[in-house]
Amino acid sequence: MISLKYFDNAASSWPKPKQVVEAMTEAVMLYAANPGRGSHQMAVQASRIIFQTRVNLASLFQIDDPNHISFCLNTTEALNLAIKGILKPKDHVVCTSVEHNSVRRPLEYLKKNSDIEVTYVKTNKLGEINLEEIENAIQTNTKLMICNHSSNLIGSILPIDQINKIAKKHGLITLVDAAQSAGLIPIDVDGMGIDILAFPGHKGLLGPQGTGGIYIHPDIDVEPLMHGGTGSQSEKIEQPTIRPDRYESGTQNTPGIAGLNEGVKFVLNETVEKIHAKEWELTQRLMLGLLNIPQVKILGPKLGDNKTGITSFNVETIEASQVAFRLDRKYNIAVRSGYHCTPLAHETVGTVKLGAVRASVGYFTTTDEVDEFIDAVQNIANR
Amino acid sequence: MISLKYFDNAASSWPKPKQVVEAMTEAVMLYAANPGRGSHQMAVQASRIIFQTRVNLASLFQIDDPNHISFCLNTTEALNLAIKGILKPKDHVVCTSVEHNSVRRPLEYLKKNSDIEVTYVKTNKLGEINLEEIENAIQTNTKLMICNHSSNLIGSILPIDQINKIAKKHGLITLVDAAQSAGLIPIDVDGMGIDILAFPGHKGLLGPQGTGGIYIHPDIDVEPLMHGGTGSQSEKIEQPTIRPDRYESGTQNTPGIAGLNEGVKFVLNETVEKIHAKEWELTQRLMLGLLNIPQVKILGPKLGDNKTGITSFNVETIEASQVAFRLDRKYNIAVRSGYHCTPLAHETVGTVKLGAVRASVGYFTTTDEVDEFIDAVQNIANR
Repeated sequence: MISLKYFDNAASSWPKPKQVVEAMTEAVMLYAANPGRGSHQMAVQASRIIFQTRVNLASLFQIDDPNHISFCLNTTEALNLAIKGILKPKDHVVCTSVEHNSVRRPLEYLKKNSDIEVTYVKTNKLGEINLEEIENAIQTNTKLMICNHSSNLIGSILPIDQINKIAKKHGLITLVDAAQSAGLIPIDVDGMGIDILAFPGHKGLLGPQGTGGIYIHPDIDVEPLMHGGTGSQSEKIEQPTIRPDRYESGTQNTPGIAGLNEGVKFVLNETVEKIHAKEWELTQRLMLGLLNIPQVKILGPKLGDNKTGITSFNVETIEASQVAFRLDRKYNIAVRSGYHCTPLAHETVGTVKLGAVRASVGYFTTTDEVDEFIDAVQNIANR
Repeated sequence: MISLKYFDNAASSWPKPKQVVEAMTEAVMLYAANPGRGSHQMAVQASRIIFQTRVNLASLFQIDDPNHISFCLNTTEALNLAIKGILKPKDHVVCTSVEHNSVRRPLEYLKKNSDIEVTYVKTNKLGEINLEEIENAIQTNTKLMICNHSSNLIGSILPIDQINKIAKKHGLITLVDAAQSAGLIPIDVDGMGIDILAFPGHKGLLGPQGTGGIYIHPDIDVEPLMHGGTGSQSEKIEQPTIRPDRYESGTQNTPGIAGLNEGVKFVLNETVEKIHAKEWELTQRLMLGLLNIPQVKILGPKLGDNKTGITSFNVETIEASQVAFRLDRKYNIAVRSGYHCTPLAHETVGTVKLGAVRASVGYFTTTDEVDEFIDAVQNIANR
């Protein structure tokens, strides 16, 4: 067994509850037939597990009809589907400076190739956004408001409900990137005015990599990113409009989804509130320890602020990648360093040159591990 | 354990070699960190397994540089990427009447929304294509030749090398759908003139569902279907051109790919030639048995013809779905019935009204199972 102390949960959570791998094994060994493609017993069992997962996700996000949730390879696919399936030439989009490349790159691609306009509203260094600036950014041709629920660089939480209230006042479609919040911060799709929710399966939901999903409000039609075989209405030359089939072309990742189902059940059982509280406490302990090291500068939210389990920092005079390298080789501590796929956010917090070391706790992180982490950074800073 | 006799390998192969599930378990338990996103030990191990899988696939398909293979959720994604990433308004495509909906639906979508033209060259009822008709279908604006390597309805094998030779003579890009051939019929990318190969991981390659891939010739640039985080060049606002990153945005399905790696190793070890020979013999035995039942009509290739492990048939006076239902409930035999996502192929073989029962053997199918299958169909026909 690896004795690694894992502080890279924002990239992918680890470890997973043991039920996750058990469900995956069962799926591959016993029933990984092609769901929705046959009526035989194995195919029916595969369809059932996939539907159960939809039901559990609907319960987690307070979605009325599970069929409006579709599975994807990852959040990136969900975001590309939403962005490319909604925007037409001359449309304008408002989003924030803390969006991930999985939002920014599709937008920049469309800007260059499909004549759309984008306004990035900057947050301050703490990750806070000015709601007036959001409202002022809206134009007559604005169609879509995209907002990262929580920054993957600094862990700040954006006031989705307030931002979406402004968007709704102006008749916009709202898209929320829940890459760093699904399973980690409570999400109530209707209560928060979310039309489209893109989420990963392998982070806060504790499922395996290769899973993610999208919720699309029943009143909104998004052109599919992929057209293909759907099992249903297979005689039609057009993609069916029935959901979830419309957005699930080709064979789905049955073992992955079966694993995700167990992750979601674990989260529902523990409750998102309890998970968030535990991660917040671990993060406060981590921040407090790091604040005692004079050479360390923490980015983003201050001690006591609400945030997710992400803490990014720099150790003065040492490059971020060097800090990460020493943590790994000498202390068996896994973090991430570099640019975290969000160059605009680095501009915002002033770390374009250095990058940043990102430590992200998970529900299974222990206080002992946090203390070892602080000691290790102390030693690296003192060298 | 399910005592199912599984004749639905064309939808998804089952069972899988036990190493497949072992590798998936190991990936989830020990190192499913985010490959390419961190430099810590777990992320490095994840990257290594993914690279090994690329190397093994390259060896299977005789591809020089493994980095020109990218992973996808399924073949449908690979085909959508190729079709939508190549075709521009006014372009013309030649393909066959035995294409799957994962080719036909993207083409029909582009026809309607992006002003492309498509010619479907019909095969005869045996699945044979007239090469002259292929050549005659090429126009001055033809850009792409798409060909299904083997029909998912009738198991016929198309002469990819000859079709691509014609395509190359006219300067076309060639795209081959290897959904029913990867791991089941030898594929030599250069030798067969294949510019782009779309393949599933969970059929002939014996990996888990949720895996597939695409090979794109180094000289051909295809616009990515998804733009997003790539780990590499994360400070750039544009999708990197470096492969495989260009086509692998967001977190990849590490456990699935680790499983696929074992499937591919199994295929390399047994050899595609041996697998094809075994499936062909099983199929001949199945066809011979079915031909002895007067009420049964087999579609497509004749006894003795080269084909894959697929045999589609009808039992006169009984609807295909009824035959499948009885095979499942009374005999514990899994087949597929219906339209198989390929309406044009049904037109070609004359089964638009009835649909067809599709029995597809796999490498682990036994002659006893084939004999039980024949007996079961005999009983159903006689009732």
